Amino acid sequence: MSNNTAITPESYPMKGGDSTYSYAKNSSFQKSATNIAKSMIDEAITDYLDIKDFSSASLNNKFHIADLGCSVGPNTFISMQNILEAVQQKYQSQLGDQYPHKFPDFQIFFNDHVSNDFNTLFSSLPPERQYFAVGVPGSFHGRLFPNSSLHFVQSSYAVHWLSNLPEELLDKNSPAWNGGRIHYINADDEVGKAYVAQFAKDMASFLDARAKEIMVGGMMVLIMPSTPNDVPHSRIPSGVMFDLLGSSLMDMAKEELISEAQVDSFNLPLYAASPKEMTELINQNGFFSIVRMELNNLFSCIDSQTTGKSCTMHLRAALEGIIVKHFGSKVIDEVFHRLYEKTQEFSERLESSYKEGTQLVLVLKRKLK
Amino acid sequence: MSNNTAITPESYPMKGGDSTYSYAKNSSFQKSATNIAKSMIDEAITDYLDIKDFSSASLNNKFHIADLGCSVGPNTFISMQNILEAVQQKYQSQLGDQYPHKFPDFQIFFNDHVSNDFNTLFSSLPPERQYFAVGVPGSFHGRLFPNSSLHFVQSSYAVHWLSNLPEELLDKNSPAWNGGRIHYINADDEVGKAYVAQFAKDMASFLDARAKEIMVGGMMVLIMPSTPNDVPHSRIPSGVMFDLLGSSLMDMAKEELISEAQVDSFNLPLYAASPKEMTELINQNGFFSIVRMELNNLFSCIDSQTTGKSCTMHLRAALEGIIVKHFGSKVIDEVFHRLYEKTQEFSERLESSYKEGTQLVLVLKRKLK
Repeated sequence: MSNNTAITPESYPMKGGDSTYSYAKNSSFQKSATNIAKSMIDEAITDYLDIKDFSSASLNNKFHIADLGCSVGPNTFISMQNILEAVQQKYQSQLGDQYPHKFPDFQIFFNDHVSNDFNTLFSSLPPERQYFAVGVPGSFHGRLFPNSSLHFVQSSYAVHWLSNLPEELLDKNSPAWNGGRIHYINADDEVGKAYVAQFAKDMASFLDARAKEIMVGGMMVLIMPSTPNDVPHSRIPSGVMFDLLGSSLMDMAKEELISEAQVDSFNLPLYAASPKEMTELINQNGFFSIVRMELNNLFSCIDSQTTGKSCTMHLRAALEGIIVKHFGSKVIDEVFHRLYEKTQEFSERLESSYKEGTQLVLVLKRKLK
Repeated sequence: MSNNTAITPESYPMKGGDSTYSYAKNSSFQKSATNIAKSMIDEAITDYLDIKDFSSASLNNKFHIADLGCSVGPNTFISMQNILEAVQQKYQSQLGDQYPHKFPDFQIFFNDHVSNDFNTLFSSLPPERQYFAVGVPGSFHGRLFPNSSLHFVQSSYAVHWLSNLPEELLDKNSPAWNGGRIHYINADDEVGKAYVAQFAKDMASFLDARAKEIMVGGMMVLIMPSTPNDVPHSRIPSGVMFDLLGSSLMDMAKEELISEAQVDSFNLPLYAASPKEMTELINQNGFFSIVRMELNNLFSCIDSQTTGKSCTMHLRAALEGIIVKHFGSKVIDEVFHRLYEKTQEFSERLESSYKEGTQLVLVLKRKLK
């Protein structure tokens, strides 16, 4: 037995440490996403988590929560604390007066790729936490936990990262060759299909592993960038940003700061699935019921004057690692300087993009198949 | 509730990374210790672990093993794999033909201080492992795990590190002031007493936490440097080495490479307890029965010509961190160069030291109190 056989996914860690462009200092977008999701998660736990669903053997006065793709904090600590408190409230309301004296022991599993900066994560754990903290290194496209060992799982802004890029994107003889672009936005249909197929494969392995690890009655919340049903990918803000990043890189290739072949061979391993696609993939797996699904609007609170700057900073924190890996560290400041200028030049495209509902929150419950 | 309240122990991480003086490359001594302990652990699992001791709720087809003070590997991976295999054999012999098809899922918890290099640990995990690997950051002098959640615990070469140095060692007005020396070896009685008291306090909190975390029927193996009953600390090899290290530092102080005040304020936070002391502390705790206790001889296999060199390298890997922290990194090569020369000058002291049995292996079983 091996937990890793035949799974060799790429990893794209967020920028570690706590410097200017680090993920720790530039994850305010994800933080606001977390806040919007918080009330939904609270309600989902209140309405759908049933302590009595768990057998006494599977509960055993312990409650195991996992955050899959936790990065280095601090958002993971905030959202895990929220979930813990909502579960405690559920215990109190459902099991009566003997609580809080008989709250279970909470063990929280912080998961991310082996290449994640776990040293930073561990050193920033809240000192006064109400739980036992554990780090779990490895890809969530494979098995990470024993059978039926988790009660509640969250994955926020993580499942949209593909485990691998479809090979045909790099094959000049394939109709899915993606020369001159870095994403499926505004690309040939075949490129989009290759992304769709890879995402479907990844979600299948993700859901298959979680179906084994989450006990019957357990819940899972997925928070992810999404494309609303029947809206083109190119019309959502992240689509516009990826398109501007691609044209920034092509400008630099034309000026021979980087080579055009480098741009041809670079593709962002990201896919923003629609609610309809996610529903189909979850139904194909068959072990989870969708108890709630909602598209949130993240952009209502963002000042339009600062959109370009904040979107650029956010993208840099998330993508710097893979861009440096492909293009080298010398050009990184120039890449994002040009991206920022593009956001000013094409501010109208960004401002007129489809912003109502590009964050999907999915609340799932592990059922008996 | 907090898992950390009032516990702010010092941490003394082994040297991370994999460079020349790293722990990863200089832990052969601990490796040989692990090998000697292996057969004892195998026997202890065969003879004393009883799967039927565990209730079905506490077993639930999972088996949880923890290594407390695991450092960065590779020894921890070897010893955890040994334990896993011995437990599998026990399942097979005790529960019959349905195994190995029904082996439990093994989850192995690798614990060390927050300052341990978990990134290196995680990236060197065996890829074909038969268990789910988890990292647990924090001091084992406090709580790390939920109540009754562990089946088997090992701690190898870790519990002899004191959580804090007794304050009176630094108080010039105290009879336990330890000026001019760095350890209790050859020091005043009061110095030794301060070390004994701190070690007793640390073991009390260690055993108290483990008594809560290890389920009834669970086992714990402690492997530690020890001083045989009625043998003076100054007569065992580590005692001689610490004494030579102290006089190397004092020589450097006389030559004004470091200050004498720096030596006065430096003390090694290490204590080598005797079997008699450990027995008393375990009985005071009251939750564990000692099912086996043995002193091993580690030195029979070491070539006397290379003893000085290998002891110096070993000590450097273990102590470089705290020496650099106190004296600065500039003098570190000089300190260990002088220590090596002392081992040559006083080779007779090292060779004539008491070597029969300075590694204690304790096999404990969690009982109903």
